Amino acid sequence: MAGSGTALYAAGMIVRPRPSGLGLVFALRGSILPMIATRLAVIVLLSCVVVWLHHIWPVHVGVASVAPFTLLGLGLSIFLGFRNNSCYNRWWEGRQQWGALISTSRSFLRDINALLPEDDPLRRRAAHRIGMFAHALRTQLRGSQTQPAPDWLPAGGWARPVRNRPGLLLSELASEFAERMRAGEISDISYRLFSDHMTTMTSIQGACERLRATPMPFAYSLMLHRTVWLFCLLLPFGMVDILGLGTPLLTLVLAYSFLGLDALGEELEQPFSATPNGLPLDAMVRIIDIAVAETLCDPTPEPLHPQNFVLL
Amino acid sequence: MAGSGTALYAAGMIVRPRPSGLGLVFALRGSILPMIATRLAVIVLLSCVVVWLHHIWPVHVGVASVAPFTLLGLGLSIFLGFRNNSCYNRWWEGRQQWGALISTSRSFLRDINALLPEDDPLRRRAAHRIGMFAHALRTQLRGSQTQPAPDWLPAGGWARPVRNRPGLLLSELASEFAERMRAGEISDISYRLFSDHMTTMTSIQGACERLRATPMPFAYSLMLHRTVWLFCLLLPFGMVDILGLGTPLLTLVLAYSFLGLDALGEELEQPFSATPNGLPLDAMVRIIDIAVAETLCDPTPEPLHPQNFVLL
Amino acid sequence: MAGSGTALYAAGMIVRPRPSGLGLVFALRGSILPMIATRLAVIVLLSCVVVWLHHIWPVHVGVASVAPFTLLGLGLSIFLGFRNNSCYNRWWEGRQQWGALISTSRSFLRDINALLPEDDPLRRRAAHRIGMFAHALRTQLRGSQTQPAPDWLPAGGWARPVRNRPGLLLSELASEFAERMRAGEISDISYRLFSDHMTTMTSIQGACERLRATPMPFAYSLMLHRTVWLFCLLLPFGMVDILGLGTPLLTLVLAYSFLGLDALGEELEQPFSATPNGLPLDAMVRIIDIAVAETLCDPTPEPLHPQNFVLL
Amino acid sequence: MAGSGTALYAAGMIVRPRPSGLGLVFALRGSILPMIATRLAVIVLLSCVVVWLHHIWPVHVGVASVAPFTLLGLGLSIFLGFRNNSCYNRWWEGRQQWGALISTSRSFLRDINALLPEDDPLRRRAAHRIGMFAHALRTQLRGSQTQPAPDWLPAGGWARPVRNRPGLLLSELASEFAERMRAGEISDISYRLFSDHMTTMTSIQGACERLRATPMPFAYSLMLHRTVWLFCLLLPFGMVDILGLGTPLLTLVLAYSFLGLDALGEELEQPFSATPNGLPLDAMVRIIDIAVAETLCDPTPEPLHPQNFVLL
Amino acid sequence: MAGSGTALYAAGMIVRPRPSGLGLVFALRGSILPMIATRLAVIVLLSCVVVWLHHIWPVHVGVASVAPFTLLGLGLSIFLGFRNNSCYNRWWEGRQQWGALISTSRSFLRDINALLPEDDPLRRRAAHRIGMFAHALRTQLRGSQTQPAPDWLPAGGWARPVRNRPGLLLSELASEFAERMRAGEISDISYRLFSDHMTTMTSIQGACERLRATPMPFAYSLMLHRTVWLFCLLLPFGMVDILGLGTPLLTLVLAYSFLGLDALGEELEQPFSATPNGLPLDAMVRIIDIAVAETLCDPTPEPLHPQNFVLL
Repeated sequence: MAGSGTALYAAGMIVRPRPSGLGLVFALRGSILPMIATRLAVIVLLSCVVVWLHHIWPVHVGVASVAPFTLLGLGLSIFLGFRNNSCYNRWWEGRQQWGALISTSRSFLRDINALLPEDDPLRRRAAHRIGMFAHALRTQLRGSQTQPAPDWLPAGGWARPVRNRPGLLLSELASEFAERMRAGEISDISYRLFSDHMTTMTSIQGACERLRATPMPFAYSLMLHRTVWLFCLLLPFGMVDILGLGTPLLTLVLAYSFLGLDALGEELEQPFSATPNGLPLDAMVRIIDIAVAETLCDPTPEPLHPQNFVLL
Repeated sequence: MAGSGTALYAAGMIVRPRPSGLGLVFALRGSILPMIATRLAVIVLLSCVVVWLHHIWPVHVGVASVAPFTLLGLGLSIFLGFRNNSCYNRWWEGRQQWGALISTSRSFLRDINALLPEDDPLRRRAAHRIGMFAHALRTQLRGSQTQPAPDWLPAGGWARPVRNRPGLLLSELASEFAERMRAGEISDISYRLFSDHMTTMTSIQGACERLRATPMPFAYSLMLHRTVWLFCLLLPFGMVDILGLGTPLLTLVLAYSFLGLDALGEELEQPFSATPNGLPLDAMVRIIDIAVAETLCDPTPEPLHPQNFVLL
Repeated sequence: MAGSGTALYAAGMIVRPRPSGLGLVFALRGSILPMIATRLAVIVLLSCVVVWLHHIWPVHVGVASVAPFTLLGLGLSIFLGFRNNSCYNRWWEGRQQWGALISTSRSFLRDINALLPEDDPLRRRAAHRIGMFAHALRTQLRGSQTQPAPDWLPAGGWARPVRNRPGLLLSELASEFAERMRAGEISDISYRLFSDHMTTMTSIQGACERLRATPMPFAYSLMLHRTVWLFCLLLPFGMVDILGLGTPLLTLVLAYSFLGLDALGEELEQPFSATPNGLPLDAMVRIIDIAVAETLCDPTPEPLHPQNFVLL
Repeated sequence: MAGSGTALYAAGMIVRPRPSGLGLVFALRGSILPMIATRLAVIVLLSCVVVWLHHIWPVHVGVASVAPFTLLGLGLSIFLGFRNNSCYNRWWEGRQQWGALISTSRSFLRDINALLPEDDPLRRRAAHRIGMFAHALRTQLRGSQTQPAPDWLPAGGWARPVRNRPGLLLSELASEFAERMRAGEISDISYRLFSDHMTTMTSIQGACERLRATPMPFAYSLMLHRTVWLFCLLLPFGMVDILGLGTPLLTLVLAYSFLGLDALGEELEQPFSATPNGLPLDAMVRIIDIAVAETLCDPTPEPLHPQNFVLL
Repeated sequence: MAGSGTALYAAGMIVRPRPSGLGLVFALRGSILPMIATRLAVIVLLSCVVVWLHHIWPVHVGVASVAPFTLLGLGLSIFLGFRNNSCYNRWWEGRQQWGALISTSRSFLRDINALLPEDDPLRRRAAHRIGMFAHALRTQLRGSQTQPAPDWLPAGGWARPVRNRPGLLLSELASEFAERMRAGEISDISYRLFSDHMTTMTSIQGACERLRATPMPFAYSLMLHRTVWLFCLLLPFGMVDILGLGTPLLTLVLAYSFLGLDALGEELEQPFSATPNGLPLDAMVRIIDIAVAETLCDPTPEPLHPQNFVLL
């Protein structure tokens, strides 16, 4: 049914049902596993060496020597939990801002459609500029376009070379609105309405720039990353006395969850990156393209669909 | 008493008092138990096998070998706690957005009722469109209607085929308001008031689409799901030495709480799904139908009541 | 001093200083103890039986068999901590919404007082309707009135029988304002100002209905409630080997904190219930009555004072 | 440099650098230590008695009897952590509301200065009323004035005796603005601007009253307070077997952190109290006095400076 | 590509990729290590002494004496986790406020550019004042300028000596706008639009002053700082019996993570300080300078680039 279409194409980059049974064990696509495979191999190798050393040179380290590791490991879990929560919040705020951009663009388009006279060329130009804002913001956050652009996008790059291109788009639009206001074609209340939409768009741009340019404090990430490494490297020594041959297995499981969360946090920290867990900016830009087209009664482009489970 | 009616019919899907005593033990409806029964059976079976193996082939694994499981289990609890909190927040945000839709619809209806002249057919049309927005959003989020629709809903599907049907409803409404404004029947301040209500509705639509289309990062869910499984599968091996015959019982309790939270998180992650813990969209759409009817002094439909403890 | 009066009468239902010394041990009023006394008795009885059984039939369960209980108990603490935090947030949001209702009512009254001409009967009628809104919302959330109502409240029930009575009050008010606007007595800007106050009030109503009608997901509460019970029932078995005769005491303390938090969460989940820890809706409605009276220069009613430490 | 002055005088009540080295050990001012000294003494005394009893009557309680205390203690840490976080959020919200009051007062003063004609006596009167609002709110929250008041404050108490004095100030101001509007001296848009500032101020007042009058649910505080006490009292019994003579020391450290956090939470729960960790309301009222003076080009009073590390 | 430039120059002070491999171990720049090096040395030295004492005078402290340390350490982790989260939130709110200042400045500049007639000298003056606001706020928060200022900044200090210089800038601007309004050059709606931008800027200023002047409650920081120290000092005594020669290593790792988080929290608590993890105020002021220049079509200054990984 067509009505349920809009929501479907704004999905996160990995779009697949959660696998079950054996599929679960071997699912790699969208997993964090490939990213930390090398590190895990190092840890497992180390713990095998430790088991072997312990076998040929059995020093009894003490009956409960796993206790300090429990202390370190749980402290680490707590700090890692808070950090991961903050990274997830950054990712989710990125999605919220882009969702707000979609909503604002739609409201802005609706008001332009209703308030500007049918025969005013500004109407079409303004709608296109709203679409261009999303394209420009996407380019600013992620780099050059990979999807076919709508034909109203200027092919050979855009006009005046400025640092803040999305800002320029709105600035020129505001000047045109003010001109119409001075000509008495729209009231100052209508200008204010348009200006409020543009203020919202500028705030969204500022928030996206903030998320992109200010990662979590470097010292914080570095300290947790270091402690996770140290913990995983020391783990086999602490467990070999108790677990014997089971050491590599449990070390692997623990290292998987700790290194995995650390790596995942690092990825979610940058919600606009083009990694498999980044946000699908291209698909969201396309939703705005569709809104522009439906406002102008132009032929609407197709929404983007995930390819090989990945939506860009 | 009629006055206390409004609040009663916006309940969550499972509407039942918390059972007590034996009822608590055997309550299945609305419990997460049926969903994880198979998994629990696997775990219990496994732990029985482990106990039997340990009985016929008693390897002493070490005096405190449960310690690594404590470490893994508590780390997992912390990560699962944060994830479940985030899933619950998604569910609750879904409810907040629909609550905001009810409030905005009521405020919008009130202003239309007050500001449009009594004999203007737009008045009735606009009220119906506000009701249709809720129906269209519900359809977009959950699929085809299951409840009898009010008679003012277009029976054979709705007009122009567009991707964003709720958006089209508002867009046409805005054009009619602008027409009235140009005709001098409402002031530009009133247009702005209506436009603000519509901007709120568009934001709510955007937020609902965001919640529906962007689940938590796939790698995050997958990693936690995997670790929970690994933890539950390894648990009997760690506890058999200490607990002996009590192993299956405690394994069951632990697996119940870990697998249950994992499954529940997965369900709350999608607040608009038609599962027993999803949000009662139908009941909330009906509240808006009632608001439309009371504004137009039409006969009001009955609020929905839970059937077999479930409200859709 | 009179100036410090306003803040004092909006207190929570239990209004008493925290007892100290022996008073602390025996304080029952406002404690969660009476509510969970039966459950605690069951647990203590069970643990006495377990100690006695262990004495006459001493099976050595294992040197560290408390470890699985630590794992279960701490996992539970974490999940319970998150759930209780969410329940507290619901309670606090309920208080925030009623605080916002007080503030909005005051601001609305101020603007009505300033903008409507002194001899307009709408002035007094509008002020009364704002007060009636609070009374109607209170009735919708908690049921029939227990406090003496101000004399301007319609004694024999209110006019038209509608489902959404607070909504009707605002709707009729809006129509009267629009009439004045069409008569040129107030400007469209002033109508917008009044409309914004009413939109805020409608949002508050919607949020209160949301809190009342949508508890936390039933499966979530049920699962935690079950796990807490299971944990408390199993606890004596796990500790008897280590603690011996001290088992009932420590079981009691642990069960007190776990069952107590569970019961308290359940109570805070419904902030508008008439339980000892519910919100003092009557006292807050009275604050709005006072604001109405002070605006109209009528004799002001007395604020409500706690009776037997409880404020309704 | 004068430009950096504003930020410096809005500090928390305790204004001192964190001591280091030995200073750290003995710093008492601003510490929570004096408040819990008696309780700590009781605990230490008890644990000395326990050690002595254990010495003369050595019952071996079990090899790992500290485990139940770990379970209880960590559960308690989690619940205490959440509660302290909520108390801190209350304290911080109090500061945010007063920060918002400073900002709103400044913006309101700026608009009054710009929009009211230079020779209108309302200009000076309105500025003074904005300052009086802060003084009245401070009095409502904390009681009688301790700082020298500006000379424009009415010396012998303020006019009409009402319960809600800050509200009366705004109400009278609104009536005067409406009068000017009817006289055509300011537009309805300007009235709306002033009204919005006053709505913000009323919201701030409501939020402060909420924080002052509604502490955390009594049952919640009571239960945690009781459990902390029980935990600290039982602690020596659990640790004496393992730690021997070291028991009092470790008990002290643990009791210090648990009782300290409990006491601190209780103090932060009431952000407007005149305790050493309360908010510096006097200093913030003075900032608003300065803003009033700078708007009217009157001589500006001195900002408050901390005395003996404490800012009121 | 020029379009992606805006986001890049608003980075945090430490701008470097996370090192890997050996680089990770030895990275010092931006690490918290140099700040806590002395403290760590003290702890390691102490634990060496403890090991040596234990070697020459082996008192068996008990088989599981690490348990009380686990209890203390995990409780501490939880409290430290909450505190660090709050400190991070302060830091992030600082960044959000400055991001909002950038967005508001851009929106304000856009509206001034569109609404003021081309030949009005106020246009250029207003744009400069918006830029001066950011410079003045930066000076207020951090002290004297270190970067070359744009040539439109008054070289010999700024006009009237007032405490609240950013406020004076806006106040004078508002008076000029009101003058234009009275002269009929801009409408009251436009004044309101400008006033709203200025209200936002004043709120941002208030929030920044709040973050700078009100650290976390002194008693809270002090108590955690003390407990962390005590914990680290007692740690070797608790672990020497179990870990023997491994004691200094594990003590170092644990002390590194606990003291490191404590020191980092202290640093993030003051987001505007000129430490390596502070916010890059200079770079953000420069972004606003660029926005001013692009609005006035003046030559745009270069964005700031990190020097030696540090951006001021």
